[in-house]
Amino acid sequence: MIPQPLQQLIEELCRFPGVGPKTAQRMAFFILSRPRKEAVSLARALVGAKDNLRFCTLCGSLTEADPCAYCTDSRRDRHTICVVQEARDLFAMERTGQYRGLYHVLHGALSPLDGVGPEELRIPDLAKRISEGQVKEIIIATNPNVEGEATAAYIARLCKPLKVKVTRIAFGLPVGGDLEYADDLTLGRALEGRQDM
Amino acid sequence: MIPQPLQQLIEELCRFPGVGPKTAQRMAFFILSRPRKEAVSLARALVGAKDNLRFCTLCGSLTEADPCAYCTDSRRDRHTICVVQEARDLFAMERTGQYRGLYHVLHGALSPLDGVGPEELRIPDLAKRISEGQVKEIIIATNPNVEGEATAAYIARLCKPLKVKVTRIAFGLPVGGDLEYADDLTLGRALEGRQDM
Repeated sequence: MIPQPLQQLIEELCRFPGVGPKTAQRMAFFILSRPRKEAVSLARALVGAKDNLRFCTLCGSLTEADPCAYCTDSRRDRHTICVVQEARDLFAMERTGQYRGLYHVLHGALSPLDGVGPEELRIPDLAKRISEGQVKEIIIATNPNVEGEATAAYIARLCKPLKVKVTRIAFGLPVGGDLEYADDLTLGRALEGRQDM
Repeated sequence: MIPQPLQQLIEELCRFPGVGPKTAQRMAFFILSRPRKEAVSLARALVGAKDNLRFCTLCGSLTEADPCAYCTDSRRDRHTICVVQEARDLFAMERTGQYRGLYHVLHGALSPLDGVGPEELRIPDLAKRISEGQVKEIIIATNPNVEGEATAAYIARLCKPLKVKVTRIAFGLPVGGDLEYADDLTLGRALEGRQDM
Protein backbone atom coordinates (compact mmCIF):
# COMPACT_ATOMS: atom_id res chain seq x y z
CA MET A 1 0.00 0.00 0.00
CA ILE A 2 3.04 2.33 -0.16
CA PRO A 3 2.47 4.86 -3.00
CA GLN A 4 4.39 3.95 -6.13
CA PRO A 5 6.77 6.98 -6.36
CA LEU A 6 7.84 6.37 -2.76
CA GLN A 7 8.24 2.62 -3.31
CA GLN A 8 10.32 3.35 -6.40
CA LEU A 9 12.61 5.72 -4.49
CA ILE A 10 13.04 3.21 -1.65
CA GLU A 11 13.98 0.49 -4.15
CA GLU A 12 16.51 2.74 -5.88
CA LEU A 13 18.13 3.71 -2.57
CA CYS A 14 18.32 0.04 -1.55
CA ARG A 15 20.92 -0.54 -4.28
CA PHE A 16 23.56 1.33 -2.28
CA PRO A 17 25.95 -0.96 -0.42
CA GLY A 18 24.99 -1.22 3.25
CA VAL A 19 21.55 0.32 2.71
CA GLY A 20 18.67 -2.03 3.55
CA PRO A 21 14.91 -1.41 3.25
CA LYS A 22 14.67 0.33 6.65
CA THR A 23 17.53 2.76 5.98
CA ALA A 24 16.24 3.37 2.45
CA GLN A 25 12.79 4.20 3.83
CA ARG A 26 14.32 6.60 6.35
CA MET A 27 16.30 8.27 3.56
CA ALA A 28 13.23 8.50 1.31
CA PHE A 29 11.15 10.14 4.06
CA PHE A 30 14.03 12.52 4.68
CA ILE A 31 13.98 13.58 1.01
CA LEU A 32 10.21 14.09 1.19
CA SER A 33 10.60 16.29 4.25
CA ARG A 34 13.08 18.63 2.53
CA PRO A 35 12.47 21.34 -0.11
CA ARG A 36 12.20 20.19 -3.72
CA LYS A 37 15.40 22.02 -4.69
CA GLU A 38 17.45 19.72 -2.43
CA ALA A 39 16.14 16.64 -4.23
CA VAL A 40 16.92 18.30 -7.57
CA SER A 41 20.40 19.22 -6.41
CA LEU A 42 21.16 15.64 -5.31
CA ALA A 43 19.72 14.30 -8.57
CA ARG A 44 21.97 16.69 -10.55
CA ALA A 45 25.05 15.71 -8.51
CA LEU A 46 24.39 12.01 -9.20
CA VAL A 47 24.16 12.39 -12.96
CA GLY A 48 26.82 15.12 -12.99
CA ALA A 49 29.35 12.84 -11.30
CA LYS A 50 28.70 10.13 -13.90
CA ASP A 51 28.90 12.59 -16.82
CA ASN A 52 31.85 14.75 -15.79
CA LEU A 53 34.28 12.25 -14.34
CA ARG A 54 36.52 9.99 -16.38
CA PHE A 55 39.69 8.04 -15.77
CA CYS A 56 43.03 9.74 -16.45
CA THR A 57 44.62 7.94 -19.41
CA LEU A 58 48.06 8.18 -17.75
CA CYS A 59 47.47 7.16 -14.12
CA GLY A 60 43.88 5.89 -14.11
CA SER A 61 42.66 8.24 -11.36
CA LEU A 62 39.22 9.84 -11.40
CA THR A 63 39.34 13.25 -13.02
CA GLU A 64 37.38 15.94 -14.86
CA ALA A 65 40.28 16.86 -17.16
CA ASP A 66 42.53 14.30 -18.85
CA PRO A 67 45.43 14.04 -17.98
CA CYS A 68 44.55 14.58 -14.31
CA ALA A 69 45.70 17.21 -11.83
CA TYR A 70 48.25 14.80 -10.32
CA CYS A 71 49.88 13.90 -13.63
CA THR A 72 50.09 17.55 -14.78
CA ASP A 73 51.25 19.04 -11.45
CA SER A 74 54.88 20.06 -12.06
CA ARG A 75 55.57 20.33 -8.31
CA ARG A 76 55.08 16.59 -7.83
CA ASP A 77 58.02 14.20 -7.80
CA ARG A 78 58.00 12.46 -11.19
CA HIS A 79 60.53 9.81 -10.11
CA THR A 80 58.13 7.96 -7.82
CA ILE A 81 54.92 6.13 -8.67
CA CYS A 82 52.56 4.83 -6.00
CA VAL A 83 50.49 1.87 -7.23
CA VAL A 84 46.99 1.54 -5.71
CA GLN A 85 44.05 -0.72 -6.49
CA GLU A 86 41.25 1.86 -6.69
CA ALA A 87 40.79 5.61 -7.14
CA ARG A 88 39.48 5.83 -3.57
CA ASP A 89 42.81 4.40 -2.31
CA LEU A 90 44.54 7.29 -4.06
CA PHE A 91 42.45 9.79 -2.06
CA ALA A 92 43.34 7.91 1.13
CA MET A 93 47.06 8.24 0.29
CA GLU A 94 46.60 11.95 -0.44
CA ARG A 95 44.92 12.50 2.93
CA THR A 96 48.15 11.44 4.68
CA GLY A 97 49.76 14.57 3.21
CA GLN A 98 53.05 12.64 3.10
CA TYR A 99 53.24 11.60 -0.52
CA ARG A 100 54.23 14.00 -3.31
CA GLY A 101 54.88 11.62 -6.21
CA LEU A 102 52.69 10.30 -9.02
CA TYR A 103 50.10 7.52 -8.92
CA HIS A 104 49.05 4.50 -10.89
CA VAL A 105 45.55 3.11 -10.32
CA LEU A 106 45.15 -0.55 -11.29
CA HIS A 107 41.33 -0.67 -11.05
CA GLY A 108 41.38 -3.99 -9.22
CA ALA A 109 43.71 -6.74 -8.08
CA LEU A 110 44.82 -10.00 -9.66
CA SER A 111 42.19 -12.65 -9.11
CA PRO A 112 42.57 -15.62 -11.49
CA LEU A 113 39.38 -17.26 -10.17
CA ASP A 114 37.37 -14.20 -11.26
CA GLY A 115 39.21 -14.05 -14.58
CA VAL A 116 41.16 -10.91 -13.61
CA GLY A 117 44.68 -11.17 -15.05
CA PRO A 118 47.39 -8.52 -15.60
CA GLU A 119 45.83 -7.44 -18.92
CA GLU A 120 42.60 -6.47 -17.15
CA LEU A 121 44.44 -4.31 -14.62
CA ARG A 122 46.39 -1.50 -16.33
CA ILE A 123 49.58 -3.39 -15.46
CA PRO A 124 50.83 -3.12 -19.07
CA ASP A 125 50.35 0.68 -18.82
CA LEU A 126 52.48 0.67 -15.68
CA ALA A 127 55.24 -1.28 -17.43
CA LYS A 128 55.10 1.27 -20.27
CA ARG A 129 55.37 4.22 -17.83
CA ILE A 130 58.39 2.61 -16.17
CA SER A 131 60.09 1.82 -19.46
CA GLU A 132 60.01 5.54 -20.36
CA GLY A 133 62.94 5.78 -17.94
CA GLN A 134 62.02 8.67 -15.61
CA VAL A 135 60.75 6.49 -12.74
CA LYS A 136 63.14 5.48 -9.94
CA GLU A 137 60.84 3.99 -7.34
CA ILE A 138 57.56 2.09 -7.41
CA ILE A 139 55.71 2.10 -4.08
CA ILE A 140 53.15 -0.71 -4.03
CA ALA A 141 50.14 0.19 -1.90
CA THR A 142 47.72 -2.59 -2.82
CA ASN A 143 45.51 -4.00 -0.03
CA PRO A 144 46.99 -6.35 2.58
CA ASN A 145 44.92 -9.38 1.52
CA VAL A 146 45.44 -12.38 -0.78
CA GLU A 147 44.63 -10.56 -4.04
CA GLY A 148 46.53 -7.42 -3.07
CA GLU A 149 49.61 -9.39 -2.04
CA ALA A 150 49.53 -11.47 -5.23
CA THR A 151 49.27 -8.28 -7.28
CA ALA A 152 52.17 -6.71 -5.35
CA ALA A 153 54.33 -9.80 -5.93
CA TYR A 154 53.47 -9.83 -9.64
CA ILE A 155 54.36 -6.15 -10.09
CA ALA A 156 57.60 -6.55 -8.10
CA ARG A 157 58.65 -9.42 -10.38
CA LEU A 158 57.72 -7.37 -13.45
CA CYS A 159 59.79 -4.40 -12.29
CA LYS A 160 62.97 -6.35 -11.45
CA PRO A 161 64.43 -6.40 -15.03
CA LEU A 162 63.42 -2.74 -15.52
CA LYS A 163 66.05 -1.60 -12.97
CA VAL A 164 63.65 0.27 -10.77
CA LYS A 165 63.45 0.19 -6.97
CA VAL A 166 60.26 -1.49 -5.76
CA THR A 167 58.94 -0.95 -2.22
CA ARG A 168 55.83 -2.10 -0.38
CA ILE A 169 54.05 0.03 2.26
CA ALA A 170 54.62 -1.29 5.80
CA PHE A 171 52.24 -3.57 7.67
CA GLY A 172 52.11 -3.61 11.44
CA LEU A 173 50.18 -2.31 14.38
CA PRO A 174 47.72 0.49 13.61
CA VAL A 175 48.68 3.72 15.42
CA GLY A 176 46.70 4.01 18.66
CA GLY A 177 46.14 0.25 18.58
CA ASP A 178 46.59 -2.17 21.43
CA LEU A 179 49.16 -4.97 21.28
CA GLU A 180 46.84 -7.23 23.25
CA TYR A 181 44.06 -6.96 20.68
CA ALA A 182 46.19 -7.17 17.53
CA ASP A 183 45.54 -10.30 15.47
CA ASP A 184 48.36 -12.83 15.13
CA LEU A 185 49.06 -12.13 11.46
CA THR A 186 49.33 -8.38 11.97
CA LEU A 187 51.55 -8.79 15.00
CA GLY A 188 53.70 -11.27 13.03
CA ARG A 189 54.08 -8.71 10.22
CA ALA A 190 54.92 -6.00 12.76
CA LEU A 191 57.69 -8.15 14.20
CA GLU A 192 59.00 -9.06 10.76
CA GLY A 193 59.08 -5.41 9.68
CA ARG A 194 60.79 -4.13 12.85
CA GLN A 195 63.14 -1.20 12.38
CA ASP A 196 66.26 0.11 14.11
CA MET A 197 65.64 2.92 16.57
CA MET B 1 42.34 17.22 -4.44
CA ILE B 2 39.09 15.26 -4.93
CA PRO B 3 37.59 16.22 -8.33
CA GLN B 4 34.74 18.71 -7.96
CA PRO B 5 31.82 16.58 -9.33
CA LEU B 6 32.78 13.79 -6.90
CA GLN B 7 33.17 16.22 -3.99
CA GLN B 8 29.76 17.70 -4.83
CA LEU B 9 28.10 14.28 -4.86
CA ILE B 10 29.72 13.34 -1.54
CA GLU B 11 28.48 16.57 0.05
CA GLU B 12 24.95 16.01 -1.25
CA LEU B 13 24.88 12.44 0.08
CA CYS B 14 26.16 13.64 3.47
CA ARG B 15 22.85 15.42 4.04
CA PHE B 16 21.06 12.12 4.62
CA PRO B 17 20.51 11.29 8.28
CA GLY B 18 23.10 8.80 9.51
CA VAL B 19 25.36 9.27 6.46
CA GLY B 20 28.81 10.67 7.31
CA PRO B 21 31.65 11.55 4.93
CA LYS B 22 33.00 7.97 4.80
CA THR B 23 29.64 6.40 3.97
CA ALA B 24 28.91 9.17 1.47
CA GLN B 25 32.25 8.52 -0.25
CA ARG B 26 31.49 4.81 -0.40
CA MET B 27 28.07 5.55 -1.91
CA ALA B 28 29.56 8.00 -4.42
CA PHE B 29 32.16 5.46 -5.60
CA PHE B 30 29.39 2.89 -5.87
CA ILE B 31 27.44 5.23 -8.18
CA LEU B 32 30.57 5.78 -10.28
CA SER B 33 31.11 2.04 -10.60
CA ARG B 34 27.59 1.43 -11.99
CA PRO B 35 26.15 2.15 -15.48
CA ARG B 36 25.00 5.73 -16.13
CA LYS B 37 21.37 4.63 -16.45
CA GLU B 38 21.29 3.59 -12.79
CA ALA B 39 22.37 7.07 -11.70
CA VAL B 40 19.71 8.57 -13.96
CA SER B 41 17.07 6.24 -12.61
CA LEU B 42 17.89 7.15 -8.99
CA ALA B 43 17.92 10.85 -9.91
CA ARG B 44 14.47 10.48 -11.53
CA ALA B 45 13.09 8.61 -8.52
CA LEU B 46 14.28 11.39 -6.19
CA VAL B 47 12.62 14.20 -8.09
CA GLY B 48 9.64 12.00 -9.01
CA ALA B 49 8.89 11.26 -5.36
CA LYS B 50 8.93 15.00 -4.56
CA ASP B 51 6.76 15.87 -7.56
CA ASN B 52 4.19 13.09 -7.49
CA LEU B 53 3.48 12.69 -3.81
CA ARG B 54 1.20 14.97 -1.81
CA PHE B 55 -0.65 14.73 1.46
CA CYS B 56 -4.23 13.43 1.41
CA THR B 57 -6.51 16.35 2.38
CA LEU B 58 -8.66 13.99 4.48
CA CYS B 59 -6.21 11.86 6.46
CA GLY B 60 -2.84 13.51 5.79
CA SER B 61 -1.14 10.35 4.47
CA LEU B 62 1.32 10.40 1.57
CA THR B 63 -0.44 9.72 -1.71
CA GLU B 64 -0.35 10.20 -5.46
CA ALA B 65 -4.13 10.73 -5.76
CA ASP B 66 -6.14 12.91 -3.37
CA PRO B 67 -8.12 11.59 -1.45
CA CYS B 68 -5.79 8.66 -0.81
CA ALA B 69 -6.29 4.92 -1.35
CA TYR B 70 -7.10 4.40 2.34
CA CYS B 71 -9.79 7.09 2.48
CA THR B 72 -11.48 5.90 -0.73
CA ASP B 73 -11.28 2.16 -0.02
CA SER B 74 -14.89 1.11 0.62
CA ARG B 75 -13.77 -2.17 2.24
CA ARG B 76 -12.16 -0.33 5.15
CA ASP B 77 -14.00 0.19 8.43
CA ARG B 78 -15.13 3.85 8.42
CA HIS B 79 -16.03 3.82 12.12
CA THR B 80 -12.45 3.67 13.37
CA ILE B 81 -9.65 6.20 12.96
CA CYS B 82 -6.07 5.45 13.96
CA VAL B 83 -4.12 8.61 14.81
CA VAL B 84 -0.38 8.52 14.03
CA GLN B 85 2.35 11.16 14.11
CA GLU B 86 3.94 10.62 10.70
CA ALA B 87 3.12 9.01 7.36
CA ARG B 88 5.84 6.41 7.99
CA ASP B 89 4.01 5.34 11.18
CA LEU B 90 0.95 4.64 9.03
CA PHE B 91 2.98 2.24 6.87
CA ALA B 92 4.24 0.54 10.06
CA MET B 93 0.61 0.04 11.21
CA GLU B 94 -0.31 -1.34 7.78
CA ARG B 95 2.53 -3.86 7.93
CA THR B 96 0.91 -5.50 10.97
CA GLY B 97 -1.97 -6.50 8.66
CA GLN B 98 -4.28 -6.21 11.69
CA TYR B 99 -5.86 -2.83 11.15
CA ARG B 100 -8.63 -2.22 8.62
CA GLY B 101 -9.91 1.22 9.64
CA LEU B 102 -9.03 4.73 8.51
CA TYR B 103 -6.06 6.89 9.51
CA HIS B 104 -5.30 10.41 10.59
CA VAL B 105 -1.72 11.64 10.28
CA LEU B 106 -0.88 14.57 12.58
CA HIS B 107 2.49 15.45 10.96
CA GLY B 108 4.17 15.83 14.33
CA ALA B 109 3.46 15.86 18.04
CA LEU B 110 2.64 18.64 20.49
CA SER B 111 5.82 20.39 21.56
CA PRO B 112 5.15 23.82 23.11
CA LEU B 113 8.90 24.54 23.42
CA ASP B 114 9.27 24.21 19.64
CA GLY B 115 6.13 26.23 19.05
CA VAL B 116 4.11 23.21 17.90
CA GLY B 117 0.55 23.56 19.16
CA PRO B 118 -2.70 21.81 18.13
CA GLU B 119 -3.23 24.24 15.22
CA GLU B 120 0.08 23.16 13.65
CA LEU B 121 -0.88 19.48 13.86
CA ARG B 122 -4.06 18.75 11.88
CA ILE B 123 -5.85 18.26 15.21
CA PRO B 124 -8.67 20.62 14.15
CA ASP B 125 -9.13 18.44 11.02
CA LEU B 126 -9.45 15.41 13.29
CA ALA B 127 -12.11 17.16 15.40
CA LYS B 128 -13.97 18.00 12.21
CA ARG B 129 -13.86 14.38 11.00
CA ILE B 130 -15.18 13.16 14.36
CA SER B 131 -17.96 15.75 14.45
CA GLU B 132 -19.28 14.41 11.13
CA GLY B 133 -20.69 11.59 13.30
CA GLN B 134 -19.58 8.39 11.52
CA VAL B 135 -16.58 7.68 13.78
CA LYS B 136 -17.03 5.41 16.82
CA GLU B 137 -13.45 4.80 17.96
CA ILE B 138 -10.23 6.78 17.88
CA ILE B 139 -7.11 4.65 18.36
CA ILE B 140 -4.19 6.85 19.38
CA ALA B 141 -0.88 5.46 18.13
CA THR B 142 1.47 8.37 18.79
CA ASN B 143 5.00 7.53 19.98
CA PRO B 144 5.60 6.42 23.59
CA ASN B 145 7.66 9.49 24.56
CA VAL B 146 6.92 12.83 26.24
CA GLU B 147 5.59 14.60 23.11
CA GLY B 148 3.63 11.57 21.93
CA GLU B 149 2.02 11.06 25.34
CA ALA B 150 1.13 14.74 25.65
CA THR B 151 -0.45 14.63 22.20
CA ALA B 152 -2.40 11.49 23.11
CA ALA B 153 -3.68 13.10 26.32
CA TYR B 154 -4.70 16.26 24.44
CA ILE B 155 -6.63 14.32 21.79
CA ALA B 156 -8.31 12.13 24.42
CA ARG B 157 -9.52 15.26 26.26
CA LEU B 158 -10.71 16.78 22.98
CA CYS B 159 -12.70 13.65 22.09
CA LYS B 160 -14.48 13.25 25.46
CA PRO B 161 -17.37 15.71 24.74
CA LEU B 162 -17.70 14.33 21.19
CA LYS B 163 -19.02 10.99 22.53
CA VAL B 164 -16.46 8.83 20.83
CA LYS B 165 -14.49 5.95 22.33
CA VAL B 166 -10.77 6.76 22.65
CA THR B 167 -8.15 4.03 23.02
CA ARG B 168 -4.36 4.05 23.20
CA ILE B 169 -2.20 1.25 21.75
CA ALA B 170 -0.66 -0.93 24.47
CA PHE B 171 2.82 -0.51 25.89
CA GLY B 172 4.72 -3.38 27.39
CA LEU B 173 7.40 -5.94 26.61
CA PRO B 174 8.36 -6.24 22.95
CA VAL B 175 7.54 -9.72 21.60
CA GLY B 176 10.66 -11.88 21.73
CA GLY B 177 12.11 -9.58 24.39
CA ASP B 178 13.69 -10.59 27.64
CA LEU B 179 12.22 -9.58 31.02
CA GLU B 180 15.70 -9.26 32.44
CA TYR B 181 16.74 -6.65 29.90
CA ALA B 182 13.54 -4.61 29.81
CA ASP B 183 13.96 -1.06 31.14
CA ASP B 184 12.07 -0.12 34.32
CA LEU B 185 9.56 2.18 32.64
CA THR B 186 8.58 -0.40 30.03
CA LEU B 187 8.24 -3.13 32.64
CA GLY B 188 6.17 -0.75 34.78
CA ARG B 189 3.84 -0.07 31.84
CA ALA B 190 3.61 -3.82 31.13
CA LEU B 191 2.53 -4.46 34.71
CA GLU B 192 0.05 -1.60 34.65
CA GLY B 193 -1.47 -2.81 31.39
CA ARG B 194 -1.77 -6.47 32.49
CA GLN B 195 -4.75 -8.36 31.11
CA ASP B 196 -6.91 -11.27 32.28
CA MET B 197 -5.96 -14.61 30.76
